[in-house]
Amino acid sequence: MRQPTIRDVAERAGVSKSLVSLVLRGSDQVRPEKRDAVLRAAQELGYRPNAAARSLSEQRTRTVGVLLNDLRNPWFVDLLDGLNSLLHANGLHMLLADARLNRRTGQDPADPLLDLRVDGLVVVGTLPDPAALGAVAERIPVVLAGSREPAPPGVDVVAGDDERGARLVTEHLIGLGHRRIAHIAGYGAVGELRRGSFEAAMRRHGLAERAVVEPSDMTEEGGYRTTVRLLSGTERPTAVFAVNDMAAIGVLSAAEELGLRVPRDLSVVGYDNTSIARLRHVWLTTVDNTSHEVGRRAARCLLERFEGPGGAGRTQLATPTLEIRGSTAPAP
Amino acid sequence: MRQPTIRDVAERAGVSKSLVSLVLRGSDQVRPEKRDAVLRAAQELGYRPNAAARSLSEQRTRTVGVLLNDLRNPWFVDLLDGLNSLLHANGLHMLLADARLNRRTGQDPADPLLDLRVDGLVVVGTLPDPAALGAVAERIPVVLAGSREPAPPGVDVVAGDDERGARLVTEHLIGLGHRRIAHIAGYGAVGELRRGSFEAAMRRHGLAERAVVEPSDMTEEGGYRTTVRLLSGTERPTAVFAVNDMAAIGVLSAAEELGLRVPRDLSVVGYDNTSIARLRHVWLTTVDNTSHEVGRRAARCLLERFEGPGGAGRTQLATPTLEIRGSTAPAP
Repeated sequence: MRQPTIRDVAERAGVSKSLVSLVLRGSDQVRPEKRDAVLRAAQELGYRPNAAARSLSEQRTRTVGVLLNDLRNPWFVDLLDGLNSLLHANGLHMLLADARLNRRTGQDPADPLLDLRVDGLVVVGTLPDPAALGAVAERIPVVLAGSREPAPPGVDVVAGDDERGARLVTEHLIGLGHRRIAHIAGYGAVGELRRGSFEAAMRRHGLAERAVVEPSDMTEEGGYRTTVRLLSGTERPTAVFAVNDMAAIGVLSAAEELGLRVPRDLSVVGYDNTSIARLRHVWLTTVDNTSHEVGRRAARCLLERFEGPGGAGRTQLATPTLEIRGSTAPAP
Repeated sequence: MRQPTIRDVAERAGVSKSLVSLVLRGSDQVRPEKRDAVLRAAQELGYRPNAAARSLSEQRTRTVGVLLNDLRNPWFVDLLDGLNSLLHANGLHMLLADARLNRRTGQDPADPLLDLRVDGLVVVGTLPDPAALGAVAERIPVVLAGSREPAPPGVDVVAGDDERGARLVTEHLIGLGHRRIAHIAGYGAVGELRRGSFEAAMRRHGLAERAVVEPSDMTEEGGYRTTVRLLSGTERPTAVFAVNDMAAIGVLSAAEELGLRVPRDLSVVGYDNTSIARLRHVWLTTVDNTSHEVGRRAARCLLERFEGPGGAGRTQLATPTLEIRGSTAPAP
């Protein structure tokens, strides 16, 4: 049996050879239906791109390491899907390591991946010390995906546009008639950008005085504790925008415990559109980071650096969307 | 600076050298407090066991591959914690691959790990075709963790005792006065064992006629659909025991939609004690598989096979416990 060629893929997908090439390079210029058809045809035929394979010297492992921030918060699952689809279509494998576990045992989080000589590294989520990646980036391509921390030289960043996402949330709540709105804030670049954009949107609508911002550690427990405090005060907010879904779940618990019904008495919005937000039992209004797209773009950055190493790091932002579900309603 | 020795670890932990050795070999004969103190001291000192390192020939990568069934169901997080703590104390790294992602792109799920020549493989959760691991097990040690599928020769199995867990649930519900109890069943060995044990316990209490068993695909959506059907019939059950937490979350959603309050009108129990069951907003009674212990035992199986390869595969069962939370109450 002969190996399938790019021509076979084009025929099966019903597209031109040049369109197949565009898709395999991860181009943005292809409509999603066409892209999916090409990737599906490549998989079904077991197509392996010779060019990509050749461009990697025989020293290479053809494996990309993915360092996950913390497996317990499942926001990264769609991102991995997007990353894997494009890497695989280019003959590359993907291996994962859990940065939290490695930190707990005192290891440098990326070590297990680097020891096996991965060809490239994708860091998913916020790392405590992204600067430490500078030395790695001198040897292999490194991409930060889904986080907005300052990157060392030569490292690409692909993330959702947090300012836009937070603005969508704030305007959704204002549009529902909410005036006194609380933001449960987070930390790091992501936390700062979401908080800043919330405050700016409130200001633009003349509501700066009605905005409440409380810090949190971005966990469920943190969201819970902050909300109990918020809702026990006088002049209680009618809506809460939490920095992420986990904290928003904590808001739901606090509301329940205080006898407030969501969304009748209190609107709640999260961020990340995790699988937990999509559970019917939770059904949380939240921001979708288009993580699948973030993952695909991160893969494209790596592929481009495999072909032509070096050059300054670039930052790309994917456009988030608001997922309106059952946890928001007009102000009481 | 000299390398820390086993004597340094013993001193820091305030225990004997032989106890440190026992812990590093993963012995069951050590009390948890002592074990934790030793592992903590080893980490803090950056201790690397020379013996373990020597016993691995220089051909080895000192890396163990972990193949996860599906990253979207977070039940495996504690298992990885347990696995990693013991592997790391023995100078071994851990890398992960997501079997679902690899299957979707038509790869053999373990390939990315095997291509990088991991020294051993831990398969976490149910694989569609565990027999395919037979060929791998002829080359490197393989352990199945957290699943009860029939294993190929020479493969160890470490899992929770599903029959005991399901019996604990059923007797808890009967003890609360429930008589008409439904079981939302799953598939595979785990599904069969949990269902069989539920039925046996109902029989022992003379309730065989009141037991209802409905199949499901073990997802939230499956649990939801099955429950809507169950609760719309005549002679509605007063308690539902779902095969896993994800299906149990679906039960909660169905109950809510049908206007039934949990636990006043309907008691609900899951299985796995996932992070979702622990969310205050969910607070689900469930079975804890002592996954941390399962992970530690899986690591010990691997370590033993590194020292003395070959021999028949063994099955070890960890003893589960019932976590009683807010979703169960006396029968109405």
